Amino acid sequence: MKKNYIMAPGPTPVPEDVLLDIAKPIIHHRTSQYQEIFKKASEGLKYLFNTKNDIFTFASSGTGAMEAAVINILSSGDKAIVVRGGKFGERFSDICKAYGIEAINIDVEWGKPVDPGLIKKRLADNKDLKAVFATLCETSTGTKNDIQGIANIVSATNAVLIVDAVSGLCADDLRTDEWKVDVVCCGSQKGMMLPPGLAFLSINKKAMEKVAKSNLPKYYFDLKAYKKSLDKNDVPWTPAVGLVRGLCKSIDMIREEGMENVLARHARLANATKEAAKALGLELFSASPSNAVTAVKVPSGVDGQNLVKTMRNKYGVTIAGGQAHLKGKIFRIAHLGYMVEFDTLTAISALEITLKELGHKFTLGSGVGAALKVFTA
Amino acid sequence: MKKNYIMAPGPTPVPEDVLLDIAKPIIHHRTSQYQEIFKKASEGLKYLFNTKNDIFTFASSGTGAMEAAVINILSSGDKAIVVRGGKFGERFSDICKAYGIEAINIDVEWGKPVDPGLIKKRLADNKDLKAVFATLCETSTGTKNDIQGIANIVSATNAVLIVDAVSGLCADDLRTDEWKVDVVCCGSQKGMMLPPGLAFLSINKKAMEKVAKSNLPKYYFDLKAYKKSLDKNDVPWTPAVGLVRGLCKSIDMIREEGMENVLARHARLANATKEAAKALGLELFSASPSNAVTAVKVPSGVDGQNLVKTMRNKYGVTIAGGQAHLKGKIFRIAHLGYMVEFDTLTAISALEITLKELGHKFTLGSGVGAALKVFTA
Repeated sequence: MKKNYIMAPGPTPVPEDVLLDIAKPIIHHRTSQYQEIFKKASEGLKYLFNTKNDIFTFASSGTGAMEAAVINILSSGDKAIVVRGGKFGERFSDICKAYGIEAINIDVEWGKPVDPGLIKKRLADNKDLKAVFATLCETSTGTKNDIQGIANIVSATNAVLIVDAVSGLCADDLRTDEWKVDVVCCGSQKGMMLPPGLAFLSINKKAMEKVAKSNLPKYYFDLKAYKKSLDKNDVPWTPAVGLVRGLCKSIDMIREEGMENVLARHARLANATKEAAKALGLELFSASPSNAVTAVKVPSGVDGQNLVKTMRNKYGVTIAGGQAHLKGKIFRIAHLGYMVEFDTLTAISALEITLKELGHKFTLGSGVGAALKVFTA
Repeated sequence: MKKNYIMAPGPTPVPEDVLLDIAKPIIHHRTSQYQEIFKKASEGLKYLFNTKNDIFTFASSGTGAMEAAVINILSSGDKAIVVRGGKFGERFSDICKAYGIEAINIDVEWGKPVDPGLIKKRLADNKDLKAVFATLCETSTGTKNDIQGIANIVSATNAVLIVDAVSGLCADDLRTDEWKVDVVCCGSQKGMMLPPGLAFLSINKKAMEKVAKSNLPKYYFDLKAYKKSLDKNDVPWTPAVGLVRGLCKSIDMIREEGMENVLARHARLANATKEAAKALGLELFSASPSNAVTAVKVPSGVDGQNLVKTMRNKYGVTIAGGQAHLKGKIFRIAHLGYMVEFDTLTAISALEITLKELGHKFTLGSGVGAALKVFTA
């Protein structure tokens, strides 16, 4: 018998109770019954995002929310800073390019967080900058950026800060209102414990003022249409009814555990994974590790792509490899969403078995032992 | 006890087996396991669309596929014919407007099909026209257009024909390749028997050549990115894994029944509903009724909005009212997807009970009797 464990940074495991709610008979979306569900979900999202701002829900992947941020807030010819420290920073830059926004890229070495001072300097040098795009957790490298530090700088200017928190939300602390983060993008299939198919965008007054003036073409992701509907607990296009129903359930679970505890749990699992990696003689990749996902360097003598494949195909444990130039050089174990200590121990056990098989030298059990030490501390 | 019956033209009931497949544990999308599922779904879609063309699957509502058609095939300043005979024809026109496409609208009285001759004349008068947008079933009025007739005209020109088959597919015959329909847009929550959250677009070579030249800005719905991925049974952004899994199941069910039988079933339910309406002294609204949904005029003396509300709130039967200027003037009963004779009889029974209550004069049972006559003919 082989069981499947999904421990890549998204999609993440979905609680059985959420899956069952998603599987309930479909209801019509233009009814008070659905409006109540949607209202509950929209209110609950505010708890997750730490905000009183409006949050819009799209039937799309997280990339849809990222595109929505660009095309609703900016106008043709606008200039914006994009922090690029991995695949997802690059995505913001690509979206800007697609819409004729001049992206002033701050390229950060993959695995390093951005220095907020660099953003401060660029903003001071160029008063024309309309927005700063940054990533809470850069999934491709498992690196957390200092969003509080960045927000502190951007909020003192006319630019708006747009944060991709797709993989970071519910894993790394994000205080949208307290830190003055203008826009937050998220997706359903990470810390929210849902299948992929929903995306979210929270937006404050400062950014909504730019929405009113934006001249980029849009329709499906037009926030003005969403705003008009949201005020009636409605959406402009047919919503993904089943997933929104599941969202209500997963929010209930997160509320019950309490966001502080959710974050502490992610930190605990991440710490255990880091300690285990070190005990196995492995090196961590990120200089500023996120609690969403831990990136570990593949030891010399081991084929990184084979490591990931063996863990999945032979042992049923799906982790992620490296992307782009990191292909084969790192592997990534997620701690996202519906995960507890025993899931992390499973991942580490499978890693040990696989490393042994691929010829890496270490004391069997030392990784699991180090993780148990963290869990019992 | 009150049971809920969803008989509006989308979302439609989802078979229990499909819901259960959607509720299966989530798998990672960058794996051969998912690729096999996606390949099976993509192949199956070709059966549903009657085509050998590529079909792209988006995580979005049907409107996303409509936007994808506009922004990928046209370029700024292009001119296109839009047939507007209801809410959904208008949507194509609105999307064109949002992207600076000059929409040459052919406005058709709601409830009437477009005369293909009008399209022929416009195309002859203006050799610059790049596309013709038409609707298979205009959901807002329950009206079927003569897509074969339109395709016959458009295929002889350089323009491409883009058909919104969101509510029509699997209910009204659509022979994409045989009729030379260049592009077909669809959504999951109608005849495909799935929850909302997926959209589809089939596209032939003639239209793909325009895609290569299109200069409108796009990212999430960029068909070039989807095409590059599709050739590897992949998608550019995280797909709605659960819904795609459900799609495989619903395609299996449709294949097993056979498309001819599926279409015949929809026709049978639609005919029964029409005969029932007439027997109840009611008038049909559409001059060219679709088999997806039957629109019926609200009889004088009856409050149409109250009729729809009573059926839903008191009897659990969700049908749709009229939209825009038809609000309160028509009601619409769908035959879409996972529906059999007894569902239609339930709708007619609830209609009879409600009409009686609201003071309409007729012989109780005459509607159901007329429907039974159709079913036993």
